[in-house]
Amino acid sequence: MQRIIALKESAFQRHHFDGFLIFNSANQLYFTGFSGASALLIPRDGEAIIYVYGVNYEQAKAEGKNFNVELVGRDENLMAKIAGKAVDCGVKQLAVDALGVESWRNLAKATRGKVKLGFKGGLVADLRKIKDQAEIELMRKAADLTNLGMKTAYEVLSPGLKEVEVAAEIEYAMRKKGSGGTAFETAVSSGSRSAFPHGGCTDRQIREGDLVVIDFGAVFENYRCDMTRTLVAGKPAEKQKHIYEIVKKAQQAAFETTKAQTKARNVDAAARQIIKDAGYGEFFVHGLGHGVGLDVHEPPTLNPVSKEKLAEGNVVTIEPGVYLPGFGGVRIEDTVLVTKEGAEKLTKGFYSMNVN
Amino acid sequence: MQRIIALKESAFQRHHFDGFLIFNSANQLYFTGFSGASALLIPRDGEAIIYVYGVNYEQAKAEGKNFNVELVGRDENLMAKIAGKAVDCGVKQLAVDALGVESWRNLAKATRGKVKLGFKGGLVADLRKIKDQAEIELMRKAADLTNLGMKTAYEVLSPGLKEVEVAAEIEYAMRKKGSGGTAFETAVSSGSRSAFPHGGCTDRQIREGDLVVIDFGAVFENYRCDMTRTLVAGKPAEKQKHIYEIVKKAQQAAFETTKAQTKARNVDAAARQIIKDAGYGEFFVHGLGHGVGLDVHEPPTLNPVSKEKLAEGNVVTIEPGVYLPGFGGVRIEDTVLVTKEGAEKLTKGFYSMNVN
Repeated sequence: MQRIIALKESAFQRHHFDGFLIFNSANQLYFTGFSGASALLIPRDGEAIIYVYGVNYEQAKAEGKNFNVELVGRDENLMAKIAGKAVDCGVKQLAVDALGVESWRNLAKATRGKVKLGFKGGLVADLRKIKDQAEIELMRKAADLTNLGMKTAYEVLSPGLKEVEVAAEIEYAMRKKGSGGTAFETAVSSGSRSAFPHGGCTDRQIREGDLVVIDFGAVFENYRCDMTRTLVAGKPAEKQKHIYEIVKKAQQAAFETTKAQTKARNVDAAARQIIKDAGYGEFFVHGLGHGVGLDVHEPPTLNPVSKEKLAEGNVVTIEPGVYLPGFGGVRIEDTVLVTKEGAEKLTKGFYSMNVN
Repeated sequence: MQRIIALKESAFQRHHFDGFLIFNSANQLYFTGFSGASALLIPRDGEAIIYVYGVNYEQAKAEGKNFNVELVGRDENLMAKIAGKAVDCGVKQLAVDALGVESWRNLAKATRGKVKLGFKGGLVADLRKIKDQAEIELMRKAADLTNLGMKTAYEVLSPGLKEVEVAAEIEYAMRKKGSGGTAFETAVSSGSRSAFPHGGCTDRQIREGDLVVIDFGAVFENYRCDMTRTLVAGKPAEKQKHIYEIVKKAQQAAFETTKAQTKARNVDAAARQIIKDAGYGEFFVHGLGHGVGLDVHEPPTLNPVSKEKLAEGNVVTIEPGVYLPGFGGVRIEDTVLVTKEGAEKLTKGFYSMNVN
């Protein structure tokens, strides 16, 4: 309910809306604890309502405890139903968090002449950027599970294993201890494939001396985590070690720069400068990091064009990388909590390419 | 390229567009074999172009083999870039497959006065509904992995295990044999939670005599599968057996009704009538099924209000269920291929509640 109050303050007092309509499922989860709704209507005057079809009705009543749950029939028009209720609640200016263009048109048609619509995607995102204590606890647990997954990766990696087999061991270790699936598609990208930042995993057999970029995250009560390490199956070559040390230094520099009130682009710059100075600037082909929470990618964004300042309670990734086409890539990533004084690593350890 | 030709026939000859802009990532995958693009522009005259940011540039060049790959700089406006290219290719009427309202507005602004936009979400979906031989082979492999996962479920389920531990074993068995992750969040919903059709899995310990609804799917080269069985940890009670037999009979009846040219709502009705006749009609709270492919939920939809006819090459689920709040639920689901003469089960076996 605290979160609904914060939204009302932001949307209704500072932005002059008098109703908010939430479609994004992570946003619904954030406010209600339930993610299977078709929509969540939050009027300024009156109680918030979760709209669900029959398939999720009983679950919504059980999990969305403090909300009214409204059953939507298969033959009912959801947008017309919402529009009618908004009018009943006296809503004149309705903010919407996320909607495809076709559904938007249907909603606009249903509300025409009665309620004015305004797209306000960033408003809930702004609230979600600052994690409260309860969220931080869940993210710590997701990080603990992720650290366990990485420990497993270091234990099992060896030449001859397929990428997908390594993923199987990591995911199994986390799942058995309670991870709610994977935060995103686990990547175990080996050999020249390690030069693809989003390489996923295949049935390629890992060879002696391959660079292997391993990127995954656990989920704990819907909160996600994100961690990457780069390993070598066998003895690292000189060039591999050289690049690894540059990326490691860049990651540490960015971490040390991370602090509430710091500009996100300056944290990116701390890592980017080190990689550039080492002569690999053009091979760091992505931004430094992103927020993590109910979504694995959410605001704030840390890259050279970020306009945001970090704030206490942000949880972000710090993940510089160097990717040499044909040769391979190195990325080191932690999920960190931004504090008043600096930052705290939630994922940690394993800052080495050596599996043994 | 066959698929691009089919899209051009549909969109440009039958619908009078002269360009198609694809944002949905499964749609991109369908046409290009690569899913990490920001957009795919298919002009009537000229070559198709994949737009990617630097992070995915090398991978797009490697995986999107027959397409031009255009790098989008971090400081470039993607919509303006696409609009410029569309104008260069002589596009006057541009169809768009999927877009959020905010991005739509940006695109409309960038194209204003030069290119007319039309939203055509269903057009690519219509093509994707009919699986070609290559797709059917991949879906067979996804189904084989899924059948293996279900075999594992029957082998491991026993009182005392946590729901999440059962999920871990299922996912591990599939992953080791090459599954590309999970088709959707695995559900192992036990006891009264089995009455939630989308119950997911928790750390609840399964008890002797619990109904356990197990719903999951493997992924093979991006093609998904979907299968559910309901088990009892221990000896089933009479009422559990009674409901199980009703659902089993309903599922079989729907399967036997499934055939090209049959109305989707008639297949739903075949199952629904049996459940209704047995007195449980109000507890079958969802539609009978949905298409499966690159997405786990895609057209066609099989429910009482479906307007579609099934066609040869559709791959759909048949999944009736009965959910008694407080008591538990039973669902039996297979993914089946619609043929000229009837249907073929891709997932199969295990039509029993008994684990031993």
